[in-house]
Amino acid sequence: MIILGIDPGSRKTGYGLISKEGNRLIHIDNGAIFTSSAKDFPQRLQQIYFGLCGIIEEYQPTAVAVENVFVAKNVQSALKLGQARGAAIVAAVCGGLSVFEYSASQVKQAVVGTGRAEKLQVQQMIKVLLNLPEIAQEDASDALAVAVCHANSAGMNNLVRLAR
Amino acid sequence: MIILGIDPGSRKTGYGLISKEGNRLIHIDNGAIFTSSAKDFPQRLQQIYFGLCGIIEEYQPTAVAVENVFVAKNVQSALKLGQARGAAIVAAVCGGLSVFEYSASQVKQAVVGTGRAEKLQVQQMIKVLLNLPEIAQEDASDALAVAVCHANSAGMNNLVRLAR
Repeated sequence: MIILGIDPGSRKTGYGLISKEGNRLIHIDNGAIFTSSAKDFPQRLQQIYFGLCGIIEEYQPTAVAVENVFVAKNVQSALKLGQARGAAIVAAVCGGLSVFEYSASQVKQAVVGTGRAEKLQVQQMIKVLLNLPEIAQEDASDALAVAVCHANSAGMNNLVRLAR
Repeated sequence: MIILGIDPGSRKTGYGLISKEGNRLIHIDNGAIFTSSAKDFPQRLQQIYFGLCGIIEEYQPTAVAVENVFVAKNVQSALKLGQARGAAIVAAVCGGLSVFEYSASQVKQAVVGTGRAEKLQVQQMIKVLLNLPEIAQEDASDALAVAVCHANSAGMNNLVRLAR
């Protein structure tokens, strides 16, 4: 069962793919879609959408996990982040995938064991949990973290139950 | 030359289609995609995306115009609006269409002649300009207004020039 975690952003959208085999989590791939070469904002959204469609086609994940965002620096950055998030979620739902949303504290709880963990702690735990050679790039690490959160969540357990 | 104007919203996305023939603007259709029946937010985005894809397939517009948003009630509503806008723009760019963005004051200037016009003045002018039997529903009227703005804009004139 392959899970795609996404950390959307208008300049950089992180992605992370893991599979859950029994109780084991196995790292498949991680990276980021960079949109800085886009000539305008709609083109950035297009790059996020097509980038994720390609990843979904290549790895055929079973579910998509995205961190739920409740805060932003200001309205302008919330609008930009929202649009990137919209493009990412549309890529997932158009790929026929269910999208599961988790709060930042749920992700921290799932990865580190406390909802108040620091960012670096999460990154280090992701490295350990997924046996990575080094700490993944920030957005990719965040994407892996939300994928791990989904793998360990009730939603995932329900999916497993349904599949039996 | 058919222009699709979109007024994205997470609960209701207005659309308006006009054609420009010489200096004449002709109303084709207007309406709204309602997403209140969706079971979750990702499904709302899917409904916006598929709704607009269907409209683009049916009417084959040449360009898409969207009002640029700079303000929102708060960060939460900006995130929601941003996601709806992202889904709408992805539908347009995936349909191979160029997306043109205009500020609220550009739209008011183009429709009423002053960037400080009231909302009702814009709606009344849209009714007159497009020879509608009555004032269109609010989101649809806003979508028609941004389409009219594009039809009268330099961007549109450039497109006409390129097409010759």
